[in-house]
Amino acid sequence: MRDAYHEELDSIGDGLVEMARLVGSAIGRATTAILDADLKLAENVIEADQKVDELQHDLEARAIALLARQQPVATDLRIVVTSLRMSADLERSGDLAQHVAKLARLRYPARAVPRDLHATILEMGQLAQRLMAKAAEVIITKDVDLALQLEQDDDAMDLLHRTLFQHLMDDRWKHGIETAVDVTLLGRYYERFADHAVSVAKRVVYLVTGEHADEIQAELQSEIQTVPGTEGA
Amino acid sequence: MRDAYHEELDSIGDGLVEMARLVGSAIGRATTAILDADLKLAENVIEADQKVDELQHDLEARAIALLARQQPVATDLRIVVTSLRMSADLERSGDLAQHVAKLARLRYPARAVPRDLHATILEMGQLAQRLMAKAAEVIITKDVDLALQLEQDDDAMDLLHRTLFQHLMDDRWKHGIETAVDVTLLGRYYERFADHAVSVAKRVVYLVTGEHADEIQAELQSEIQTVPGTEGA
Repeated sequence: MRDAYHEELDSIGDGLVEMARLVGSAIGRATTAILDADLKLAENVIEADQKVDELQHDLEARAIALLARQQPVATDLRIVVTSLRMSADLERSGDLAQHVAKLARLRYPARAVPRDLHATILEMGQLAQRLMAKAAEVIITKDVDLALQLEQDDDAMDLLHRTLFQHLMDDRWKHGIETAVDVTLLGRYYERFADHAVSVAKRVVYLVTGEHADEIQAELQSEIQTVPGTEGA
Repeated sequence: MRDAYHEELDSIGDGLVEMARLVGSAIGRATTAILDADLKLAENVIEADQKVDELQHDLEARAIALLARQQPVATDLRIVVTSLRMSADLERSGDLAQHVAKLARLRYPARAVPRDLHATILEMGQLAQRLMAKAAEVIITKDVDLALQLEQDDDAMDLLHRTLFQHLMDDRWKHGIETAVDVTLLGRYYERFADHAVSVAKRVVYLVTGEHADEIQAELQSEIQTVPGTEGA
């Protein structure tokens, strides 16, 4: 009985990894769709999100069935509850990739992103995809160091987001309001996508260590700060 | 033992209602702060969100403890798991109210919202607050009809959101890019806040009926459509 149980638990983990892979691919393809004004690719991303939603429903049903049948306690219980939360993060990430694709479709055949922001949006899209790939790896390996790395990657996303805003606020902005609105929303989608990837990784940290990732970061920070000569670094 | 259990279950419900009340109040006050450029009120909303986060942590800890100690099955299990999801919706709503307040603080002493959009943003803020008040009522009363009403209110929010975009896209827009960006983000915050309120109500419907709210809406719709003379209504 315990074996069937752990198999079921593993299969929930596999489902999460599969979801992370799908939404990571979706944000990559959505970024290509919006930069190239590729309608077919955009529609493909929009449709593919259904698969992510199905996976989530399936995963939730299995997690709840597991709770009812096996009544896990302690760590096992924490794993199941945390899996439910991770699946919600991943489902939402899929929605955000879909939002990017929908914006591509809305503006087709025009391009939503002006040429001088092409590089920044490409970087945001690639970073979002990398973050999700790392989140998937964290689910598989339960590597706490890798999970903490995601927060640094997320800082890079925040920086890109600020760069985007600086462009928008620049007096020389010449692309008009519609594009400003599109770029504002796009920036928000990528930023939220990254937040969800970080959130998935943080939840794994919590599972492994029983501590919240923020606490670990704070401890590391305070260790660094007590090393002489590194003040203000 | 069962009595203590149901007391604990009720207290989780009370916690959800308390969270809904706090975030409903927060979005109302954040709206006032941004419309009046009231820095003190904005800071008050920003600080108050900590209380919501604490409530969520507390509620989650109690829900997990309940799962471990009492190992509920069937309906009771569904209630606990659904409560976890509702608390996540409410926590996120609190963040969105905080985002509105942070924008008010960022632009202070200027006003983020131009005068000709004052009425629309006020309406969005009030509607968001009403939606959350109804969501709280749905948690208390488990009134499925009221829960389904929230979806109609959400349609009103979508309409306001579209109105906002029409203003932005109007050739006569004269408030510049920064304000366009602010208004775009504001619109998104209110829309997402409303989505979370609707999501809370939908989860109650699922608890009460075992059916997803969308299915019930579809059934009602098909009943209406089979009444002769109402086609296309």
